Amino acid sequence: MELKNRFVSIKASIDGTPLDSDFEIKTETLSFSIGVGTKQVLVQNLYVSIDPYQLNRMKTRSSSQTAISFASAIIPGEAIDTYGVGRVVESEKPDYQKGDLVVGLLSWGEYTVVKEGSILNKLDPMGLPLPHHVGTLGFSGLSAYGGFFEVCKPKKGETVFVSAASGSVGSLVGQYAKLFGCYVVGCAGSQKKVDLLKEELGFDDAFNYKEETDLNSALKRYFPDGIDIYFDNVGGEMLEAAVVNMNTFGRVAVCGVISEYIDNGKRAAPNMLDVVYKRITIEGFLANDYIKLYADFFSTTMEHLRTGKMKALTDISYGLESVPSAFIGLFRGDNVGKKIVQIADE
Amino acid sequence: MELKNRFVSIKASIDGTPLDSDFEIKTETLSFSIGVGTKQVLVQNLYVSIDPYQLNRMKTRSSSQTAISFASAIIPGEAIDTYGVGRVVESEKPDYQKGDLVVGLLSWGEYTVVKEGSILNKLDPMGLPLPHHVGTLGFSGLSAYGGFFEVCKPKKGETVFVSAASGSVGSLVGQYAKLFGCYVVGCAGSQKKVDLLKEELGFDDAFNYKEETDLNSALKRYFPDGIDIYFDNVGGEMLEAAVVNMNTFGRVAVCGVISEYIDNGKRAAPNMLDVVYKRITIEGFLANDYIKLYADFFSTTMEHLRTGKMKALTDISYGLESVPSAFIGLFRGDNVGKKIVQIADE
Repeated sequence: MELKNRFVSIKASIDGTPLDSDFEIKTETLSFSIGVGTKQVLVQNLYVSIDPYQLNRMKTRSSSQTAISFASAIIPGEAIDTYGVGRVVESEKPDYQKGDLVVGLLSWGEYTVVKEGSILNKLDPMGLPLPHHVGTLGFSGLSAYGGFFEVCKPKKGETVFVSAASGSVGSLVGQYAKLFGCYVVGCAGSQKKVDLLKEELGFDDAFNYKEETDLNSALKRYFPDGIDIYFDNVGGEMLEAAVVNMNTFGRVAVCGVISEYIDNGKRAAPNMLDVVYKRITIEGFLANDYIKLYADFFSTTMEHLRTGKMKALTDISYGLESVPSAFIGLFRGDNVGKKIVQIADE
Repeated sequence: MELKNRFVSIKASIDGTPLDSDFEIKTETLSFSIGVGTKQVLVQNLYVSIDPYQLNRMKTRSSSQTAISFASAIIPGEAIDTYGVGRVVESEKPDYQKGDLVVGLLSWGEYTVVKEGSILNKLDPMGLPLPHHVGTLGFSGLSAYGGFFEVCKPKKGETVFVSAASGSVGSLVGQYAKLFGCYVVGCAGSQKKVDLLKEELGFDDAFNYKEETDLNSALKRYFPDGIDIYFDNVGGEMLEAAVVNMNTFGRVAVCGVISEYIDNGKRAAPNMLDVVYKRITIEGFLANDYIKLYADFFSTTMEHLRTGKMKALTDISYGLESVPSAFIGLFRGDNVGKKIVQIADE
């Protein structure tokens, strides 16, 4: 069969803050043949994940950017792969039937031809809304779970600070930490988000970092006895201020540094005297490293969602056309919780 | 008994590069009574340790310097405690006899009254020169041993980069790493030191960082396949360059940041994108944390020194008056190996 597929792509590499003009909607003709042995699956995309890290894949590659080279590049003009939920249209794999729900590596487009070997699994929504399976039960959730339990190595009663706490990962870290028995404070960029953290997600406290003139003092106010664990989603000055306020043997899990994604010149310069004297560990990680925890993560999180002990924050926009603005909005803090675009009706 | 004791003290807090004029030699009268139950030991100091970290104890205390507050302050006008080797003059402790050699927390002075509860042990030199017991078999050695084996968690065949590699700790880290089966490159601040590392200490390679205009490129040249372990003694630009050149799951043990001790405004700003994508761990530590390894460390190191598999680099000045210049010289890189001042003849 042949069908027209519309998808989002970048016009050129993006260095700095992404703009609407950096993106375009392209149209291609997808051909999909049955019985040729490729084991491909043609999927209609329903919900796709919108994540800040994609910006790192869009940057110009240069020899000085060694880190970026670890993320596979997004090529201008081509489709952009992303995690999502879809429905099988045609399949060369016998165990995937037309109409089956699937979750895996799809794309910012109407359709994806998922190749053999790529991430794709049949999805039983188990009574939860499909968007929950894009973020909370997907890689955002696994980042939160692996990062908090494996990198932060929490003990009950410890104090935990989470930045971008109303974001896709932060909102889950805070909830895992509360359920585990930690004291949790989050920061976010608006009063509405702060209220949400305290009133809906059970954070012990929260503050709007945009209203603080001195982040060191703010953290000292919220953590008079110091921070044991900092789950860092933002980098920059917040990381510096957190390190100043860390306790001995404190742990910093660096999940993302969104403030540094849009500005190559912006760098956190944590005080290394603090790092030495307080024996602080600063550790970067990727969700992929914790795939081995997936079954634990999924069953634990599913149970908490079912019983209402955890809440999945999803922020959904509608239509392929909204993908660029949904993505750009991440860097302005527009999203509350996991940003997802619904591409088609269920 | 009473005796005159001359000791080195600071005139006022020191912020920045230490100068001769910051120090003075003072004289006090020490009274030492026997049979009053204080369990004190009067020690004549023979060899005392000169360490860069002492500068952090000399700084002005302010609320913004949280890290510094973890190091006990050196008070202007008072004696400065330091690790060293001495000989018992009088003792209230029955197991310490006049003439016994001891090792422990002494001071930058001619005599020390060691109080009950302070670090003091009888010393059997076991055929090694006394200065070896100040540094190589003391806290410098324990820093190297604990930092390398516990913080860096090396695997055979991994690549190791050591900064300040001809210093008290670096020179030992490089040797432990070589004996363990790693590929080791060190950097130092003169051709003489570089030659020493390669010809005397068995480093696989070494370079003079002062002759490099671009530290990133230098490290790329010496580690074409990347760095697995960076043992950091200096901080600053070298830490930044090392992070750029680290391999995935690389480990940075931060033992000291001498370039930042003399300049509060100087800070390493390692690229956090590297830290995340390459899952790098940056961990500070203090030798004290590895006291539990002391017996292992001591027997292993003693054996290596006896059999000639390791060499102890000691750099000795003579006389109490030379303490300030010996200390100041650390920040110019004057020392080759462990800096020690001999206060009195053995």
